Amino acid sequence: MSPDVNANNVTPVVIGVDFGTLSGRAVVVRVSDGAELASAVCPYKHGVISQTLPGSTRRLPPDTALQLPEDYREVLRRAVPEALAASGVAPDQVIGIGTDFTACTVLPVTAEGTPLCELPDYTDRPHAYPKLWKHHAAQPEADLVNQVARERGERWLARYGGRISSEWEFAKALQVLREDPEIYERTDRWIEAADWIVWELCGRETRNVCTAGYKGIHQDGAWPDRGYLAALHPDFAGFVEDKLAHPLSQLGGRAGGLTSRAAEWTGLPEGIAVAVGNVDAHVTAAAARTVAPGQMLAVMGTSTCHVMNSDVLAEVPGMCGVVRDGIVPGLWGYEAGQSGVGDIFGWFADTSVPDDYVRQAGELGVSIHDLLSAKAAGQPVGGHGLVALDWHSGNRSVLVDHDLSGVIAGLTLATRPEEIYRALVEATAFGARTIVDAFDASGVTVTEFTVAGGLVRNPFVMQVYADVLRRPLNTIVSDQGPALGAAIHAAVAAGAYPDIHAASAAMGRVREAAVLPDPERADAYDELYAIYTDLHDHFGRGGDGALHRLRRIRNRVTPG
Amino acid sequence: MSPDVNANNVTPVVIGVDFGTLSGRAVVVRVSDGAELASAVCPYKHGVISQTLPGSTRRLPPDTALQLPEDYREVLRRAVPEALAASGVAPDQVIGIGTDFTACTVLPVTAEGTPLCELPDYTDRPHAYPKLWKHHAAQPEADLVNQVARERGERWLARYGGRISSEWEFAKALQVLREDPEIYERTDRWIEAADWIVWELCGRETRNVCTAGYKGIHQDGAWPDRGYLAALHPDFAGFVEDKLAHPLSQLGGRAGGLTSRAAEWTGLPEGIAVAVGNVDAHVTAAAARTVAPGQMLAVMGTSTCHVMNSDVLAEVPGMCGVVRDGIVPGLWGYEAGQSGVGDIFGWFADTSVPDDYVRQAGELGVSIHDLLSAKAAGQPVGGHGLVALDWHSGNRSVLVDHDLSGVIAGLTLATRPEEIYRALVEATAFGARTIVDAFDASGVTVTEFTVAGGLVRNPFVMQVYADVLRRPLNTIVSDQGPALGAAIHAAVAAGAYPDIHAASAAMGRVREAAVLPDPERADAYDELYAIYTDLHDHFGRGGDGALHRLRRIRNRVTPG
Repeated sequence: MSPDVNANNVTPVVIGVDFGTLSGRAVVVRVSDGAELASAVCPYKHGVISQTLPGSTRRLPPDTALQLPEDYREVLRRAVPEALAASGVAPDQVIGIGTDFTACTVLPVTAEGTPLCELPDYTDRPHAYPKLWKHHAAQPEADLVNQVARERGERWLARYGGRISSEWEFAKALQVLREDPEIYERTDRWIEAADWIVWELCGRETRNVCTAGYKGIHQDGAWPDRGYLAALHPDFAGFVEDKLAHPLSQLGGRAGGLTSRAAEWTGLPEGIAVAVGNVDAHVTAAAARTVAPGQMLAVMGTSTCHVMNSDVLAEVPGMCGVVRDGIVPGLWGYEAGQSGVGDIFGWFADTSVPDDYVRQAGELGVSIHDLLSAKAAGQPVGGHGLVALDWHSGNRSVLVDHDLSGVIAGLTLATRPEEIYRALVEATAFGARTIVDAFDASGVTVTEFTVAGGLVRNPFVMQVYADVLRRPLNTIVSDQGPALGAAIHAAVAAGAYPDIHAASAAMGRVREAAVLPDPERADAYDELYAIYTDLHDHFGRGGDGALHRLRRIRNRVTPG
Repeated sequence: MSPDVNANNVTPVVIGVDFGTLSGRAVVVRVSDGAELASAVCPYKHGVISQTLPGSTRRLPPDTALQLPEDYREVLRRAVPEALAASGVAPDQVIGIGTDFTACTVLPVTAEGTPLCELPDYTDRPHAYPKLWKHHAAQPEADLVNQVARERGERWLARYGGRISSEWEFAKALQVLREDPEIYERTDRWIEAADWIVWELCGRETRNVCTAGYKGIHQDGAWPDRGYLAALHPDFAGFVEDKLAHPLSQLGGRAGGLTSRAAEWTGLPEGIAVAVGNVDAHVTAAAARTVAPGQMLAVMGTSTCHVMNSDVLAEVPGMCGVVRDGIVPGLWGYEAGQSGVGDIFGWFADTSVPDDYVRQAGELGVSIHDLLSAKAAGQPVGGHGLVALDWHSGNRSVLVDHDLSGVIAGLTLATRPEEIYRALVEATAFGARTIVDAFDASGVTVTEFTVAGGLVRNPFVMQVYADVLRRPLNTIVSDQGPALGAAIHAAVAAGAYPDIHAASAAMGRVREAAVLPDPERADAYDELYAIYTDLHDHFGRGGDGALHRLRRIRNRVTPG
């Protein structure tokens, strides 16, 4: 099949659907050049469920973050047809659909793929619901997963920077087993939402190599063995073989054809290619043309995910994972991350900005972020006298510790809100530099730094990052990188391109060296970065354990 | 003379006048029982002069803080008669007047007591004006004062916790000499405003032991010697003997009789007792009945001043000073302080509270502080997961380091403004406990803790202090502690009581054990206090010197 005409002799298009934290987005993309013809967004009606289950008044435990599968289906039913209609494209032009999802967002389903929370007996059981990536209540289980792995010397542990996250499949499943064994028992399949949505589209279970590797501890062709699992919990011994194991599918592959039910939901032709599932950050690499070794992609939004291909296998301290074929087939895909970035700025804007700033922003017709950025942009580097640790959501890389928390040092009575805001932006840039430095030091050299995600549109943030990283930044052109990436994968799955590299080159777009570092500011930042590193190591690697002690006290005294 | 009837056979009263930072306040007090019959306030017309001198457009240097002597006289001319009139008391009932002042607020005067800034030749010379306590432009001179004292091993240095402040008499005088030698030369007397106002009232120069000791480096009957002074600056060798030295007067003593000129200003009878000058915090001890050994008084406002008598002489780490007879004759008077307390809460309320909180406070008709306190009060101790260092204005005791700055640790995306506010309140309470612990550990035992000052009216703050200190708090009854204390001193000076102890017992008022600690909360605070202490020592006593490095960078890059 050619990228330029399809079987119906019309210009072929693909659909990419990105399932985010609060909404799903569909985009209609021309196969020949990646032009985005139209898009539509569908917010999840129930958003993130962290207080009470729908129809219940019982408070959920702290750090719970659930979602509703029906909210995902609604994206297929509403956003896809809306985007298609807006694009003016005829349904028969569509040759494939690809999806990407937040991860690890994982749910218990029956052998037929029905989410347990949709079974009448279980609607009031929190553990029957999908656990969103940012469900952080499984930390005790993650601690056990890590401790037992260390004790047994499990070789796969090093592939995850020495630490398995509480966000991932095993910790979350173990939490279900320990807290609601009946739900665990009833779970036929423990499946990533990324794979479940593909099941919904094509009617058959598949498992993509990306989530299996990064979130499911699949390495060198195997999952953790029975002995290890039994050491976690006697009833967990069969977890992999009973609920997880399934042949894996390569990224860019065809999972199946669109079912008649899904065709009815979406208005797309039955039988078109459904691409293998994928993760939002990883799929964006195709859209940002960062599929060659050494091209680090930072997807900067509420949090930041760093993905990079390499032909080298190494143990990078605190990386989230390295997975063979994890981003594109044939290379080692590395992932690292910062668990709080844009959401730290958002938290500050929501909770810590005085009313006269809100009034000023209103009068100027700009956002609080724009106002704070404008006020902060003119300051000399270090003029605020502040340094912050960007751990308001814990630290994903390189410390891999979700019990850490944010710190700000250097406050005076003269400290202004825009100065704290700037210090928070800088802290996340220092966090990014810590990650890049760790890769370089491990021999997995970062040759380019490309930024995607919502923060790419904030010139102040971009300039701070270029200055702190001492590197030119490439920036993605598309405003909807994941959805475009999913569409690119759909084009490959449909056979329009031979592989992801070719499709990315034709359909992805990037602004090379869009933001350049200023050497003087970069020098000044070196000095602040040294202080950041000292605080990072003091609070993150021992010291008096102040942040862990604070967290233990908080958890002990907080009802729930 | 009896406290109950005076020479004219009527109920005797005294006048206390408190000269604050922005206004002066007169109170009319019944001698027999300390009842406050009326009071009046007179704001200083020129307030704090930090931008330009009156009638001038020339910008003053940074950190300059001057005042106008005429503003002080205006308090005598307006507030005293107003208070008297409002009290319904006949002038012939008044047997004495006492004053207290901010300190070290100090000015150059002629041999006759005329402020140099009132000589026509010098009205345009900044150094001819009184330097307010918070004039911080003499830091280079203070650094020299300390360095030379350390080099020469001056024994008096230990009486000041090892550090002479830039706010005090010597640093400020040395600044005049270095920057305007002509004014220095023309200065016949370098005098505390506390003593100058008494000169204005009774027509003769006196020097009180309190300011001489705490601010004038007078110890064991002597001032710093010529050799030391010459080492600071050759022309400074005669500073003490030429401009400072004068027999000292004990607190509670009679400085003289009211002059006819001052009688005309105030409407008071000529010849009544004028009490020896005093300092606002120290004089409050009489009003709060904290004149016996071990009774610590915390005057809590924008900053906190701790004063306490003891029969023991010791070197308490980081104390501001210990002075024989410094609070009441016959005891060692200790002073310590926290450079930022209420102003930290004020900074937070002004800069860091979102607009919906401002709206809520408006709807409820309460202050932002009340709203934040109400929201914070119900939380379990440690539930916010935060600990802060209260160093937004540096640390006066026990670290004596004004280059330190504030820290907050434990922030998450769920952290609410009232939680940070609470952490800041707690941080100042931990700072107070650090001071109390330092006194106890030095053998200068704190047996009672009494609170005066504006924050005494904040029940939330008081409860946190009681819980953190694990002690009952006594609270002063009077809303105008310094003015009442000055009136009590006037009663002693007039001979109505034999000494300050007797007068304080009769005229001072305190609510004993007004706030009780809750044992459970106190236990919980012990744990947070341990974390505070670890951070205190890490950031304050070495570690990586992060805060000093941040301050140096800030100072280097900030223009001006």
